[in-house]
Amino acid sequence: MERELVRWLTQRIPSHPRLLVGLGDDAAIVRLPDESHLVATTDMLMDGVDFESGKQPEARRIGRKALAVNLSDLAAMAAQPVAALVALALPRQGGEVLAKNLYEGMLPLAKEFDCPIAGGDTNSWEGPLVISVTAFGAVPEGRRWRRSGARPGDAILVTGSFGGSILGKHLDFQPRVREALWLAEHAEVHAAIDVSDGLSLDLARLCEASGCGAALQTSAIPLADAAAELAATRGDAPLARALADGEDFELILAVPADQAQELVQAGALGTRLTQIGNFIEQPGLFAVGPGERLEPLAVCGYEHRLDP
Amino acid sequence: MERELVRWLTQRIPSHPRLLVGLGDDAAIVRLPDESHLVATTDMLMDGVDFESGKQPEARRIGRKALAVNLSDLAAMAAQPVAALVALALPRQGGEVLAKNLYEGMLPLAKEFDCPIAGGDTNSWEGPLVISVTAFGAVPEGRRWRRSGARPGDAILVTGSFGGSILGKHLDFQPRVREALWLAEHAEVHAAIDVSDGLSLDLARLCEASGCGAALQTSAIPLADAAAELAATRGDAPLARALADGEDFELILAVPADQAQELVQAGALGTRLTQIGNFIEQPGLFAVGPGERLEPLAVCGYEHRLDP
Repeated sequence: MERELVRWLTQRIPSHPRLLVGLGDDAAIVRLPDESHLVATTDMLMDGVDFESGKQPEARRIGRKALAVNLSDLAAMAAQPVAALVALALPRQGGEVLAKNLYEGMLPLAKEFDCPIAGGDTNSWEGPLVISVTAFGAVPEGRRWRRSGARPGDAILVTGSFGGSILGKHLDFQPRVREALWLAEHAEVHAAIDVSDGLSLDLARLCEASGCGAALQTSAIPLADAAAELAATRGDAPLARALADGEDFELILAVPADQAQELVQAGALGTRLTQIGNFIEQPGLFAVGPGERLEPLAVCGYEHRLDP
Repeated sequence: MERELVRWLTQRIPSHPRLLVGLGDDAAIVRLPDESHLVATTDMLMDGVDFESGKQPEARRIGRKALAVNLSDLAAMAAQPVAALVALALPRQGGEVLAKNLYEGMLPLAKEFDCPIAGGDTNSWEGPLVISVTAFGAVPEGRRWRRSGARPGDAILVTGSFGGSILGKHLDFQPRVREALWLAEHAEVHAAIDVSDGLSLDLARLCEASGCGAALQTSAIPLADAAAELAATRGDAPLARALADGEDFELILAVPADQAQELVQAGALGTRLTQIGNFIEQPGLFAVGPGERLEPLAVCGYEHRLDP
């Protein structure tokens, strides 16, 4: 979302005692009347922006992605998925077949993550396909992973590897729900975000929300094979792709430095977990260069652009 | 939603112990891990289908409507609103101003119904405006207003009046949340639905879900002034408009006949409440004619049409 609009919304939308976490995080946390806590998130995918329905990919993979991005948001809050709602704007021509294929892509993922589809709204129109999925989850009282809790000295941990997701992972990624639930039980996670718009951009967002900066050991950043592949065709470096490419849907976590080493070495998560640097007091993103010198790092990634 | 697609979905989407009410009702009811019950609904509005952004109305009224239709779904389940999420696909040109105006329309309604906006997803694209709102509500354990509970002999009650909503009410209607909560406390409601696609069509849906029919005293159907106004310009009868026009967002309720008379006469609801007939065993919609003869009534209303 465009930053100016988020700022305006944050000022304009009043706080409410029921909103434990409101606008501006990966998901909202809402207190229900009986005091239980609900995590809720919504993501909209649009033809021509998030996929190209005319070409690859087939509708099943688009449907799967529409649910998966929401599960990834739940993961960033360490929430157990509960259910999902699906709203569709279908092109009138071929809409019924398309809808069925979208659901055929969603249903196996819904089963895998025990996140049943509870309902929705199916519409047709003359415009292109739009899919809006809302997922909600549950967290035990007291668990509030946020973007804003990273502290200088904390290790920067990431799941998986980065870069070149457009070659396939952006559709077929695994939302890191199980990893998040495991980490919530076994580590003191100060802050978390899922990488939807790019490692450097989402890390910068987490830093900004936390009021700190990040010093990266860029050589430690785990590069996806696709990062090298895409870099080769574009004539740039795999590391550049890993820092800038969106839609890896990995987690960035802030964890106390001593715990981080144990977590990484133990390897008990079952998914690659890597320390790529540390949070620091100085705002901004930096690469740790020769002699521990901090060199400013460009923040790049994907942002929705709006003309006023 | 196209009926064939709903049928397919109902078969294809597995039941789940957490889904107390799943697909095919006004909203879902989901059991959370701590046993509390959550009501969840989503509605998507699209430019050119639900409004015409190029002409009237202004964006504020569109924004208001996008939240109001969801509150109306919560009302149909007698749920207390808890929070809402807002997903937007904005045309790139003018998108920021548009987004602000949409929110300026939503926020007063969110305040009025104590349904704070907890978050969302704002996107831009080359296509027309799409707004997808998801609303959450709470119900006490045991309360499950559904479409499927009407019994032969029950009175058919409706709130408000019907017809011609396109002349204004379809944007500025009052979701019947307070009325539903009052009725849930003071009456034994066997079934309910909100009228989004037309009185006759939504009543037929309720009948089908309940496995019964409806005998209407058509002269008792409360006609909106707009029904007469629209009928005059179109050369048909106000009653035809009341039966066929969508988006009145009133409630249809099935209530034991003895209770219904008391409720209507007491007038304690504060909103017009009218008995328009009774549910009967014989499937279908009928008008009660001279000598109590049942005359079949055409079911018409708005359905999204999908070509396979």
